[in-house]
Amino acid sequence: MAPLQHEFQFIESIRQKLSAHPRLTVGIGDDAALVNFPRQPDDRQSGCLVTVDMLMDGVDFTVPPATPRQIGWKSLAVNLSDIAAMAGRPVACVASVALPRHNGFTLGQGMMEGIAACAERFGVALAGGDTNTWDGPLVISITVLGEPTSKGPVLRSGAVPGDWIMATGSFGGSIAGKHLDFTPRVEEALALHAAANLHAMIDVSDGLAADLWHILDESRVGAILDAASIPLSVEAAACRDEKTPLEHALSDGEDFELLFTVSPADGQALLDKRPFDTQLTHIGQITAARDCLLKSADGNLTSLPALGWKHGFK
Amino acid sequence: MAPLQHEFQFIESIRQKLSAHPRLTVGIGDDAALVNFPRQPDDRQSGCLVTVDMLMDGVDFTVPPATPRQIGWKSLAVNLSDIAAMAGRPVACVASVALPRHNGFTLGQGMMEGIAACAERFGVALAGGDTNTWDGPLVISITVLGEPTSKGPVLRSGAVPGDWIMATGSFGGSIAGKHLDFTPRVEEALALHAAANLHAMIDVSDGLAADLWHILDESRVGAILDAASIPLSVEAAACRDEKTPLEHALSDGEDFELLFTVSPADGQALLDKRPFDTQLTHIGQITAARDCLLKSADGNLTSLPALGWKHGFK
Repeated sequence: MAPLQHEFQFIESIRQKLSAHPRLTVGIGDDAALVNFPRQPDDRQSGCLVTVDMLMDGVDFTVPPATPRQIGWKSLAVNLSDIAAMAGRPVACVASVALPRHNGFTLGQGMMEGIAACAERFGVALAGGDTNTWDGPLVISITVLGEPTSKGPVLRSGAVPGDWIMATGSFGGSIAGKHLDFTPRVEEALALHAAANLHAMIDVSDGLAADLWHILDESRVGAILDAASIPLSVEAAACRDEKTPLEHALSDGEDFELLFTVSPADGQALLDKRPFDTQLTHIGQITAARDCLLKSADGNLTSLPALGWKHGFK
Repeated sequence: MAPLQHEFQFIESIRQKLSAHPRLTVGIGDDAALVNFPRQPDDRQSGCLVTVDMLMDGVDFTVPPATPRQIGWKSLAVNLSDIAAMAGRPVACVASVALPRHNGFTLGQGMMEGIAACAERFGVALAGGDTNTWDGPLVISITVLGEPTSKGPVLRSGAVPGDWIMATGSFGGSIAGKHLDFTPRVEEALALHAAANLHAMIDVSDGLAADLWHILDESRVGAILDAASIPLSVEAAACRDEKTPLEHALSDGEDFELLFTVSPADGQALLDKRPFDTQLTHIGQITAARDCLLKSADGNLTSLPALGWKHGFK
């Protein structure tokens, strides 16, 4: 739910007004909100994680080349990625769609197949929805409900100086295809949460640099990223345009990988005994100084800006 | 979430496939789904009610004459009405919006004021959202999370022969203004649920006849409606067109009143000691025969069709 913060301040201002609500314990500035359904007061586990994302034709995808099935998969997967960012288990989803009048039935059917495939893959119940037809382009909004594990949700705000910064997978060039077909890191997040004490976590949707900055801002810390250690995707490495492969990896967005911080001891233990097959890399350190620096192979430090790394699909 | 059933069968077919999910105990054919977050197995209260509705410019409203604030209010209120239909307490909501590029900020701000006013009126937390801008018309989707009371949710499927059919408020002519400004019957539903044993309930969005049919279909029963007792709205009574005021009351839709069935004893007790100021009327009886009849003042019985009462705003 990142766009809340940087796209329209007015929503944030209204949300602040309402956020004193006693049933909301987590939410402002995180990938999902935690709504309490308390049995006992202050029971952080008796809650429901909730997140929503709306995708629109011509903005988040274009049909064609994107297939209806890919759109359905992506619409659910982006939300599962937000639940993963909180190290939660996704439980159920509801979908609302506005189908264009022309070819709406075929489009809707293909999308539902993609949603169903993703829901079945991650054991998520499709609980209901609202289907509409109109003269406009395709719009789909999916809300996912999840639950925190017994260790509670992982927030963006828990990074502390000295932490290792780690990431799953590789970065950059997602627009070549991964942004439609990616596997949300639900299982990886749960495995990491079980194996280590995760201090802060986010899923990389806006881009590696922008999303690292979300952690730094919420945790009030800084970071040094080691340029040579940032895993470049095959697509980013192959890019031949005005940006270097590293710039693609730092700024492209929609990688939907996990970016998290842990103590060095936990980080080393995770590298020594990786709890899944997915690539896992130590890419930097959290610092006390409130800035973000990129350390090149020859030791030079340059500033990584918080802004200007807008992702390419919105 | 009524459109699921009668607009696109393919969604229903996929939902049926997925509805075996152990975390879904209620949902198919009701206004909201109940997602279990179990503490103990089979605990019907430890769940989260969830419902979603998407509203589109030119379909569910037109700007102008509808104001942004009215659209915001309606977008949340239609969902609160679905939670009310299950006799649940609304707890939190998330909103996703696609704002048109022209005037989007002003539009969004006005809508958020309407959403915030409705959320505050009903004690609902605004937990988050997703805000987008595009070249298309305004689209807003709101998901509401609620909780059943200790008596559990009220479904559409519990009506039994001999039940009284009762309704809050009055019917017809909602397009004259009520469809934008209505008060969802959240408090009335909770008061009814506390005072009586509600057998079946629905909120009237498709129209009195169409929504009564939803109860009859889910409960596998029939009904006789007493034409003279159906409360006509001032707007329906004033209508001078090809339909009679009664036809407007039966078919117009978007009344957002509660339609429910109770034992005759409970029904009489509710009339004798009405638990709220809102109008409450006994309008008919549930029968064993699987049809729906309208009894005129002179005792004539005519069939009330299940279809053909499509509401006027979708």
